[in-house]
Amino acid sequence: MNAKLYVCTTCRAGEPVVEGQPVPGARLHAALTAADAPDGVTIVPTECLSACSNGCAVALAGPGRWSYVYGRLTDADAPDILSGAAAYASTADGIVPWRERPVIFRKQSLARIPPQEN
Amino acid sequence: MNAKLYVCTTCRAGEPVVEGQPVPGARLHAALTAADAPDGVTIVPTECLSACSNGCAVALAGPGRWSYVYGRLTDADAPDILSGAAAYASTADGIVPWRERPVIFRKQSLARIPPQEN
Repeated sequence: MNAKLYVCTTCRAGEPVVEGQPVPGARLHAALTAADAPDGVTIVPTECLSACSNGCAVALAGPGRWSYVYGRLTDADAPDILSGAAAYASTADGIVPWRERPVIFRKQSLARIPPQEN
Repeated sequence: MNAKLYVCTTCRAGEPVVEGQPVPGARLHAALTAADAPDGVTIVPTECLSACSNGCAVALAGPGRWSYVYGRLTDADAPDILSGAAAYASTADGIVPWRERPVIFRKQSLARIPPQEN
Protein backbone atom coordinates (compact mmCIF):
# COMPACT_ATOMS: atom_id res chain seq x y z
CA MET A 1 0.00 0.00 0.00
CA ASN A 2 0.93 3.64 -0.21
CA ALA A 3 3.03 3.41 -3.37
CA LYS A 4 3.78 6.40 -5.55
CA LEU A 5 3.88 6.28 -9.34
CA TYR A 6 5.90 9.27 -10.51
CA VAL A 7 5.30 10.26 -14.12
CA CYS A 8 7.68 12.57 -15.94
CA THR A 9 5.27 15.06 -17.51
CA THR A 10 7.92 17.17 -19.25
CA CYS A 11 9.47 14.36 -21.31
CA ARG A 12 9.82 15.06 -25.01
CA ALA A 13 11.01 11.52 -25.73
CA GLY A 14 13.22 12.85 -28.48
CA GLU A 15 10.31 14.33 -30.42
CA PRO A 16 10.26 17.94 -31.62
CA VAL A 17 7.95 20.12 -29.52
CA VAL A 18 4.87 21.28 -31.41
CA GLU A 19 3.34 24.47 -30.00
CA GLY A 20 -0.07 23.85 -28.52
CA GLN A 21 0.47 20.07 -28.46
CA PRO A 22 1.16 18.20 -25.22
CA VAL A 23 4.61 16.62 -25.01
CA PRO A 24 4.80 12.79 -24.83
CA GLY A 25 5.25 12.90 -21.03
CA ALA A 26 2.06 14.92 -20.62
CA ARG A 27 0.22 12.49 -22.91
CA LEU A 28 1.45 9.56 -20.82
CA HIS A 29 0.29 11.24 -17.63
CA ALA A 30 -3.12 11.93 -19.17
CA ALA A 31 -3.46 8.30 -20.22
CA LEU A 32 -2.48 7.10 -16.73
CA THR A 33 -4.98 9.37 -15.00
CA ALA A 34 -7.87 8.80 -17.41
CA ALA A 35 -9.36 6.26 -15.01
CA ASP A 36 -9.10 5.75 -11.24
CA ALA A 37 -5.64 4.84 -9.96
CA PRO A 38 -5.22 1.26 -8.68
CA ASP A 39 -5.72 0.67 -4.95
CA GLY A 40 -2.75 1.84 -2.94
CA VAL A 41 -1.20 3.79 -5.82
CA THR A 42 -0.95 7.59 -5.96
CA ILE A 43 0.01 9.02 -9.35
CA VAL A 44 2.34 11.99 -8.97
CA PRO A 45 3.17 14.25 -11.95
CA THR A 46 6.85 15.20 -11.84
CA GLU A 47 8.91 17.68 -13.82
CA CYS A 48 11.82 15.69 -15.21
CA LEU A 49 12.99 12.33 -13.91
CA SER A 50 16.38 12.96 -15.58
CA ALA A 51 15.94 9.99 -17.88
CA CYS A 52 15.68 12.25 -20.91
CA SER A 53 17.50 9.98 -23.36
CA ASN A 54 15.24 7.06 -22.37
CA GLY A 55 11.87 8.79 -22.08
CA CYS A 56 9.05 8.65 -21.43
CA ALA A 57 9.84 7.53 -17.91
CA VAL A 58 8.00 6.60 -14.73
CA ALA A 59 9.24 5.65 -11.26
CA LEU A 60 7.70 3.53 -8.52
CA ALA A 61 8.55 4.11 -4.89
CA GLY A 62 7.09 3.52 -1.45
CA PRO A 63 8.10 3.21 2.20
CA GLY A 64 10.33 0.20 2.83
CA ARG A 65 10.37 -0.73 -0.84
CA TRP A 66 12.93 -0.87 -3.62
CA SER A 67 12.34 2.01 -6.04
CA TYR A 68 12.22 1.31 -9.78
CA VAL A 69 12.53 3.51 -12.86
CA TYR A 70 11.27 2.43 -16.27
CA GLY A 71 11.81 4.12 -19.61
CA ARG A 72 11.05 4.16 -23.32
CA LEU A 73 7.32 4.26 -22.53
CA THR A 74 4.41 5.75 -24.46
CA ASP A 75 0.79 6.46 -23.62
CA ALA A 76 -0.09 3.10 -25.19
CA ASP A 77 1.71 1.48 -22.24
CA ALA A 78 -0.62 3.03 -19.65
CA PRO A 79 -2.65 -0.14 -18.93
CA ASP A 80 0.51 -2.21 -18.36
CA ILE A 81 2.09 0.51 -16.23
CA LEU A 82 -1.02 0.63 -14.04
CA SER A 83 -1.17 -3.14 -13.62
CA GLY A 84 2.54 -3.20 -12.78
CA ALA A 85 2.04 -0.40 -10.26
CA ALA A 86 -0.83 -2.29 -8.65
CA ALA A 87 1.35 -5.40 -8.29
CA TYR A 88 4.14 -3.26 -6.82
CA ALA A 89 1.76 -1.65 -4.32
CA SER A 90 0.64 -5.08 -3.12
CA THR A 91 4.16 -6.05 -2.04
CA ALA A 92 5.93 -5.13 1.19
CA ASP A 93 9.38 -4.67 -0.36
CA GLY A 94 8.55 -3.62 -3.91
CA ILE A 95 9.84 -6.84 -5.44
CA VAL A 96 7.16 -8.34 -7.68
CA PRO A 97 7.87 -11.92 -8.82
CA TRP A 98 9.51 -11.74 -12.26
CA ARG A 99 6.78 -13.55 -14.18
CA GLU A 100 4.10 -11.29 -12.68
CA ARG A 101 5.74 -8.12 -13.97
CA PRO A 102 4.48 -6.56 -17.21
CA VAL A 103 6.88 -7.17 -20.08
CA ILE A 104 7.68 -3.44 -20.25
CA PHE A 105 8.87 -3.62 -16.62
CA ARG A 106 11.03 -6.69 -17.34
CA LYS A 107 12.64 -5.23 -20.45
CA GLN A 108 12.66 -1.46 -19.92
CA SER A 109 14.17 -1.05 -16.47
CA LEU A 110 16.44 1.95 -16.24
CA ALA A 111 17.43 1.44 -12.61
CA ARG A 112 16.36 0.40 -9.14
CA ILE A 113 17.42 1.75 -5.74
CA PRO A 114 17.37 -0.19 -2.46
CA PRO A 115 14.78 0.62 0.23
CA GLN A 116 15.64 3.72 2.23
CA GLU A 117 16.04 3.38 5.94
CA ASN A 118 15.36 6.79 7.36
CA MET B 1 24.43 14.32 5.92
CA ASN B 2 23.59 10.66 6.08
CA ALA B 3 23.70 9.99 2.34
CA LYS B 4 24.10 6.53 0.84
CA LEU B 5 26.17 5.78 -2.22
CA TYR B 6 24.97 2.48 -3.62
CA VAL B 7 27.43 0.74 -5.91
CA CYS B 8 26.34 -2.09 -8.19
CA THR B 9 29.03 -4.71 -7.52
CA THR B 10 27.69 -7.32 -9.91
CA CYS B 11 27.78 -5.18 -13.05
CA ARG B 12 29.54 -6.71 -16.04
CA ALA B 13 29.22 -3.51 -18.09
CA GLY B 14 28.86 -5.59 -21.21
CA GLU B 15 32.26 -7.25 -20.77
CA PRO B 16 32.73 -11.02 -20.88
CA VAL B 17 33.28 -12.50 -17.41
CA VAL B 18 36.80 -13.84 -16.91
CA GLU B 19 37.02 -16.50 -14.22
CA GLY B 20 39.01 -15.32 -11.24
CA GLN B 21 38.82 -11.69 -12.35
CA PRO B 22 36.56 -9.19 -10.59
CA VAL B 23 33.72 -7.85 -12.73
CA PRO B 24 33.73 -4.11 -13.55
CA GLY B 25 31.20 -3.38 -10.78
CA ALA B 26 33.44 -5.02 -8.20
CA ARG B 27 36.42 -3.06 -9.52
CA LEU B 28 34.44 0.18 -9.23
CA HIS B 29 33.46 -0.68 -5.64
CA ALA B 30 37.08 -1.45 -4.78
CA ALA B 31 38.22 1.88 -6.23
CA LEU B 32 35.53 3.77 -4.30
CA THR B 33 36.43 2.12 -0.99
CA ALA B 34 40.21 2.34 -1.39
CA ALA B 35 40.26 5.46 0.78
CA ASP B 36 37.94 6.79 3.49
CA ALA B 37 34.45 7.73 2.35
CA PRO B 38 33.64 11.46 2.33
CA ASP B 39 31.97 12.91 5.43
CA GLY B 40 28.31 12.04 5.58
CA VAL B 41 28.53 9.36 2.88
CA THR B 42 28.11 5.63 3.47
CA ILE B 43 29.16 3.39 0.58
CA VAL B 44 26.82 0.43 0.22
CA PRO B 45 27.67 -2.48 -2.11
CA THR B 46 24.53 -3.66 -3.87
CA GLU B 47 23.78 -6.65 -6.06
CA CYS B 48 22.31 -5.23 -9.26
CA LEU B 49 20.85 -1.77 -9.64
CA SER B 50 18.97 -3.01 -12.75
CA ALA B 51 20.85 -0.61 -15.00
CA CYS B 52 22.62 -3.47 -16.75
CA SER B 53 22.66 -1.93 -20.22
CA ASN B 54 24.18 1.27 -18.82
CA GLY B 55 26.67 -0.11 -16.30
CA CYS B 56 28.61 0.39 -14.20
CA ALA B 57 26.06 2.20 -12.11
CA VAL B 58 25.83 3.96 -8.76
CA ALA B 59 22.92 5.58 -6.92
CA LEU B 60 22.78 8.37 -4.36
CA ALA B 61 19.96 8.58 -1.84
CA GLY B 62 19.26 10.04 1.57
CA PRO B 63 16.38 11.11 3.82
CA GLY B 64 14.41 14.01 2.38
CA ARG B 65 16.52 14.07 -0.77
CA TRP B 66 16.02 13.40 -4.43
CA SER B 67 17.67 10.08 -5.38
CA TYR B 68 19.94 9.92 -8.42
CA VAL B 69 21.26 7.07 -10.54
CA TYR B 70 24.31 7.43 -12.77
CA GLY B 71 25.63 4.99 -15.35
CA ARG B 72 28.37 4.17 -17.85
CA LEU B 73 30.97 4.52 -15.08
CA THR B 74 34.35 2.84 -14.63
CA ASP B 75 36.79 2.60 -11.75
CA ALA B 76 38.64 5.57 -13.25
CA ASP B 77 35.62 7.69 -12.32
CA ALA B 78 35.94 6.92 -8.58
CA PRO B 79 37.43 10.32 -7.58
CA ASP B 80 34.66 12.24 -9.37
CA ILE B 81 31.97 9.96 -7.98
CA LEU B 82 33.27 10.56 -4.45
CA SER B 83 33.43 14.33 -4.88
CA GLY B 84 29.92 14.32 -6.34
CA ALA B 85 28.70 12.20 -3.43
CA ALA B 86 30.27 14.61 -0.94
CA ALA B 87 28.50 17.56 -2.60
CA TYR B 88 25.22 15.61 -2.53
CA ALA B 89 25.65 14.79 1.16
CA SER B 90 26.13 18.47 1.97
CA THR B 91 22.69 19.40 0.60
CA ALA B 92 19.34 19.13 2.37
CA ASP B 93 17.35 18.08 -0.71
CA GLY B 94 19.98 16.31 -2.81
CA ILE B 95 20.01 19.00 -5.48
CA VAL B 96 23.59 20.13 -6.08
CA PRO B 97 23.94 23.30 -8.21
CA TRP B 98 24.51 22.23 -11.81
CA ARG B 99 27.97 23.75 -12.17
CA GLU B 100 29.16 22.09 -8.98
CA ARG B 101 28.32 18.60 -10.20
CA PRO B 102 31.07 16.44 -11.71
CA VAL B 103 30.76 16.21 -15.49
CA ILE B 104 29.92 12.49 -15.24
CA PHE B 105 26.91 13.40 -13.08
CA ARG B 106 25.78 16.06 -15.54
CA LYS B 107 26.11 13.83 -18.59
CA GLN B 108 25.52 10.30 -17.35
CA SER B 109 22.30 10.56 -15.36
CA LEU B 110 20.10 7.53 -15.79
CA ALA B 111 17.26 8.78 -13.59
CA ARG B 112 16.24 10.65 -10.48
CA ILE B 113 13.35 10.04 -8.07
CA PRO B 114 11.67 12.68 -5.89
CA PRO B 115 12.22 12.68 -2.11
CA GLN B 116 10.16 10.07 -0.32
CA GLU B 117 7.75 11.24 2.35
CA ASN B 118 7.27 8.29 4.63
